[in-house]
Amino acid sequence: MIVRFGLLGAGRIGKVHAKAVTANPKARLVAVADAMPQAAADLAGQYGAEVRTIEAIEAAADIDAVIICTPTDTHADLIERFARAGKAIFCEKPIDLDVERVKACLKVVDAEGATLMVGFNRRFDPHFQAVKAAIAEGQIGAVEMVTIVSRDPGAPPADYVKRSGGIFRDMTIHDLDMARFLLGEEIDTVSAQASVLVDKAIGAAGDYDSASLMLFTASGKHATISNSRRATYGYDQRIEVHGSRGAVAAENQRPVSIEIASASGYTRPPLHDFFMTRYTEAYAREISAFIDCVESKSPASPSGADGLIAVALADAALKSVEEGRAVKVSEITGPLADKSVFQGR
Amino acid sequence: MIVRFGLLGAGRIGKVHAKAVTANPKARLVAVADAMPQAAADLAGQYGAEVRTIEAIEAAADIDAVIICTPTDTHADLIERFARAGKAIFCEKPIDLDVERVKACLKVVDAEGATLMVGFNRRFDPHFQAVKAAIAEGQIGAVEMVTIVSRDPGAPPADYVKRSGGIFRDMTIHDLDMARFLLGEEIDTVSAQASVLVDKAIGAAGDYDSASLMLFTASGKHATISNSRRATYGYDQRIEVHGSRGAVAAENQRPVSIEIASASGYTRPPLHDFFMTRYTEAYAREISAFIDCVESKSPASPSGADGLIAVALADAALKSVEEGRAVKVSEITGPLADKSVFQGR
Amino acid sequence: MIVRFGLLGAGRIGKVHAKAVTANPKARLVAVADAMPQAAADLAGQYGAEVRTIEAIEAAADIDAVIICTPTDTHADLIERFARAGKAIFCEKPIDLDVERVKACLKVVDAEGATLMVGFNRRFDPHFQAVKAAIAEGQIGAVEMVTIVSRDPGAPPADYVKRSGGIFRDMTIHDLDMARFLLGEEIDTVSAQASVLVDKAIGAAGDYDSASLMLFTASGKHATISNSRRATYGYDQRIEVHGSRGAVAAENQRPVSIEIASASGYTRPPLHDFFMTRYTEAYAREISAFIDCVESKSPASPSGADGLIAVALADAALKSVEEGRAVKVSEITGPLADKSVFQGR
Amino acid sequence: MIVRFGLLGAGRIGKVHAKAVTANPKARLVAVADAMPQAAADLAGQYGAEVRTIEAIEAAADIDAVIICTPTDTHADLIERFARAGKAIFCEKPIDLDVERVKACLKVVDAEGATLMVGFNRRFDPHFQAVKAAIAEGQIGAVEMVTIVSRDPGAPPADYVKRSGGIFRDMTIHDLDMARFLLGEEIDTVSAQASVLVDKAIGAAGDYDSASLMLFTASGKHATISNSRRATYGYDQRIEVHGSRGAVAAENQRPVSIEIASASGYTRPPLHDFFMTRYTEAYAREISAFIDCVESKSPASPSGADGLIAVALADAALKSVEEGRAVKVSEITGPLADKSVFQGR
Repeated sequence: MIVRFGLLGAGRIGKVHAKAVTANPKARLVAVADAMPQAAADLAGQYGAEVRTIEAIEAAADIDAVIICTPTDTHADLIERFARAGKAIFCEKPIDLDVERVKACLKVVDAEGATLMVGFNRRFDPHFQAVKAAIAEGQIGAVEMVTIVSRDPGAPPADYVKRSGGIFRDMTIHDLDMARFLLGEEIDTVSAQASVLVDKAIGAAGDYDSASLMLFTASGKHATISNSRRATYGYDQRIEVHGSRGAVAAENQRPVSIEIASASGYTRPPLHDFFMTRYTEAYAREISAFIDCVESKSPASPSGADGLIAVALADAALKSVEEGRAVKVSEITGPLADKSVFQGR
Repeated sequence: MIVRFGLLGAGRIGKVHAKAVTANPKARLVAVADAMPQAAADLAGQYGAEVRTIEAIEAAADIDAVIICTPTDTHADLIERFARAGKAIFCEKPIDLDVERVKACLKVVDAEGATLMVGFNRRFDPHFQAVKAAIAEGQIGAVEMVTIVSRDPGAPPADYVKRSGGIFRDMTIHDLDMARFLLGEEIDTVSAQASVLVDKAIGAAGDYDSASLMLFTASGKHATISNSRRATYGYDQRIEVHGSRGAVAAENQRPVSIEIASASGYTRPPLHDFFMTRYTEAYAREISAFIDCVESKSPASPSGADGLIAVALADAALKSVEEGRAVKVSEITGPLADKSVFQGR
Repeated sequence: MIVRFGLLGAGRIGKVHAKAVTANPKARLVAVADAMPQAAADLAGQYGAEVRTIEAIEAAADIDAVIICTPTDTHADLIERFARAGKAIFCEKPIDLDVERVKACLKVVDAEGATLMVGFNRRFDPHFQAVKAAIAEGQIGAVEMVTIVSRDPGAPPADYVKRSGGIFRDMTIHDLDMARFLLGEEIDTVSAQASVLVDKAIGAAGDYDSASLMLFTASGKHATISNSRRATYGYDQRIEVHGSRGAVAAENQRPVSIEIASASGYTRPPLHDFFMTRYTEAYAREISAFIDCVESKSPASPSGADGLIAVALADAALKSVEEGRAVKVSEITGPLADKSVFQGR
Repeated sequence: MIVRFGLLGAGRIGKVHAKAVTANPKARLVAVADAMPQAAADLAGQYGAEVRTIEAIEAAADIDAVIICTPTDTHADLIERFARAGKAIFCEKPIDLDVERVKACLKVVDAEGATLMVGFNRRFDPHFQAVKAAIAEGQIGAVEMVTIVSRDPGAPPADYVKRSGGIFRDMTIHDLDMARFLLGEEIDTVSAQASVLVDKAIGAAGDYDSASLMLFTASGKHATISNSRRATYGYDQRIEVHGSRGAVAAENQRPVSIEIASASGYTRPPLHDFFMTRYTEAYAREISAFIDCVESKSPASPSGADGLIAVALADAALKSVEEGRAVKVSEITGPLADKSVFQGR
């Protein structure tokens, strides 16, 4: 089976997915839509796809699935439209910045029986998958403490920050999902502290650029997250899991593995410059996993529920910063009907 | 000048100091006291020192300085006695488990003009000193985030735990001091979460064996600490400092640096088995620094004030766990007269 | 421009090139030929190419270039045929096992003005290219000593060994080319020692499975090569260059960069399992470089002359083993008309 | 038992041994002799020893053992004198630059039944000992290929070079001994190439500063050695052993294990600056092993025979450079009566 794709949004992340789709022998990029006609035409032209409107993609018989890479505030609406149109949906995170809107959206997805995968690409990174596999094989015993260091190479412009929902919903959300993925148990409370150390314009926009988080599960497992919007040494992406019988860690990645020795020491090059080069393989595997879901009609993972919880964790972090206390996730989500979000993994 | 030492306490840490003193060409171990006469005799005999009572050491004309390695609940009393006796004092951490008792003790030290160094040995580790030096040289710019991972190879017996004052005052206290040392700014709030994952007997004794901490300064700098009482892979002691222009990290240490490759992978040996082997060089340098203080009559560092603040930070951590909120250090200490504890470093 | 390719040979290395060609946006795989019709059909089918005979490819107007992956004893004949047919030629190493046959072949290439690139894929590995770049930028000063460790994960079957021309012409040839590439000066003498330590069947077939080589240039630069046909820990591929101002090294590569810590130590996974996974990126860059040559009609590098010298170095190594002495390369090649094989790099 | 030492020679290496002896609880430094009275007085004074003449040490009843650190051309004579005087002897390498003189000296040692240990300190390095232990435990199967990289941080003055016997007898001799130690089988042939790349004055003095060696055993095991007199990045001391079931390597050592990350990459400090700091622990263990020999009256290892063979290997290397061929060690030594130099290890 070949899965025929429509791509909604031809921006930075849209290009990443277009490349992953066209390199996959089980996928075909049929159409690209974008509010900027030139952007759509350029990307479509590069890969021999057509430019179409969103409406046309919605109605098309030759489209099996869509990839939603449009601005965040359009995600939930588009998910609902394409769920109703009977297309399989891959949506970039977050589903929405508002937890209630996410819940409403997921009800539609559920009612329509649509396939929805949320774009937590890092779960598909081969190194992080190897960490997860080591845990699953029992190599470190019971998971006890997850440590995530996640730092961007440079801060985004302050007006991006405004639209993004802030550092927790935009950046930390990936780490929150990764922490859940690795803990293997729902997070009960979130404690966070945040400050502006990198760029005052970010503070002026009402956001933070430096944050620390502690996550705690009901059984007493820990996770910590360290975020900064600026690491001069490159895109710093490390995870480490300590367990009852050992520990497993994924090291940082760099484009080339050389070391130069001189009178001033031994130097290896900086890390990857950002997610497009760091997670190239993760994006390819992510689309491949989505295609497998579409083909096998099996539940997608990460699911809509994963997307919901990640947003709730981000909200809990923000509330913790504001109130100087540990915030229960259930304060944000209310009681969740489906507790079994870890099923199937 | 040769500094002539009396050693109070011939237990595990007493032996470590006896070795450091006798290997130092500027020091001489004159006398050993211990409540267990045989322990005192064995250690004194090994290094050609005499067995004496504490009273005799207090009165001795041939003793310039004492090293206090007795049980914690005797520290403050002994510091006061030897301050009055005109001896220079090196005291193992903590000064006391009670902040008010520490304050009272430090008043006596101050009134007597005594030299008092508190045993935060890790400040003298060559690798950590190199981290500190890199910061001082401006190699990473302004310090923003300190990350400390500190895990013991195995849990202590539950009845040790009871006497010790709990994980924060016994184990984390070293990391709290290191965080202050590296942040270069006083800690304003402490958030902590803790659980019992390693040994239920520790829980039954009212303590925790797994803890995470977030520290925050007035200017918005962060530090995180990850503690566990059990790391199967050895004594895990890592520090990392992220700054505006870069980062610096001290790697874990192992007894031998070999790597064995086979069909199952590339394996390096486990880490050091505990602090006696991991911090051998730190203990030697610590005593050497103390001797320099005695010789030059300059203020000791880490000082009594450093010892006080470390205990207060540990108390704040415990309070944070109990109350589920960020605790201000000033809630514990009250207003501190001397804010300038970072002077001289 | 799109370069249209005919692929001669659908075996293991043919598949590697088919993948690289079809993934390259500037290339198209038009036809596949193989003595085994089913092999040709399978590979052609996978990538939407046609099955054709060699004769048909030779005569085809819709083929710009060929990739020769047939058995070694057909390389020189095919190069000559396709040079005469006006096609650009990429040929797997070696051109021929006989230096005189190589020379004769290169005369035809030269007379026809054909583009010929020889498949020393490692020159295109991003890590090794970064080593070369560091040298070119003067980061290690003048090159003095090149150290190459190159070990296969497992020994080939003895009857492959017979056809291959022996370890020096089959395996070491890559390292000899790499040594030349990095030394930046022609090799003057070769000393080698070799033995059978891995598989007696290899010895029975008249070959060796373990070899050491020392190379020496006229100006006194050194290179050493260590080869084994069996490394239990994976495909061991390291290079290191020591110079007057420093050194540069390329580390081994593994599929995932994780480390698992336990009571038995810290373990990273084995290396890549062989060249197909280790040099995936190198093969892609190699074809890309070849396409650039075809497009720009510039001289190919590695050239036919590079292929000739590599075979001569392998012959010199064998002669050194047989005679227990340092062998001058000129004993094998005779005087070379074109000394300037390093030009253009 | 306390072994009472006389130290002959108060130069650079004499100081290293004085420190190791005085730090060892089973040893006492009784007397120091040196042709320069002030040097002897300074070193003796530092450790509370006496200055004596060689004759006085020879005759002394309160001296059990001597450490010979005088110039090389006095070693053999002094060994003979102290063997006859009934003292245990530790002698710095080499015993003599002339193989025949070494043989004659060892006959005297043998006739007197004296204990003689030769100072191949690297055998006592904890990291290299761990490599040896891994081999002995069968972790890498049968040893097949030993790779030694050994580079000094800077070239010695040309007039030192003249006295030293040249690079092979002065510097490579350590690596030759290490290769034998790790191969576990006698070396049959030596091939070497050498050049002057670092300092022309060394060439003018008739020596080389850059050398490569290949060693070969009768059963076909390989060793390679890479030597340079100048490594800007510090004292480069690596060994690696490849075997039938795996490989083991000892990494380079540096004074502190930190890493600084910045926009220009990840930098670790240079290596140790030379053997005094790199091999501090090896020197301590070496003296400790010698004391054990004296105490237990067991044969010393490395023995006089080890010293003899190392010199012969160095001679073979020089001959190989001069004659451009693989040189059999037996060409240098003649038939050796005692083939069992590997016994007891």
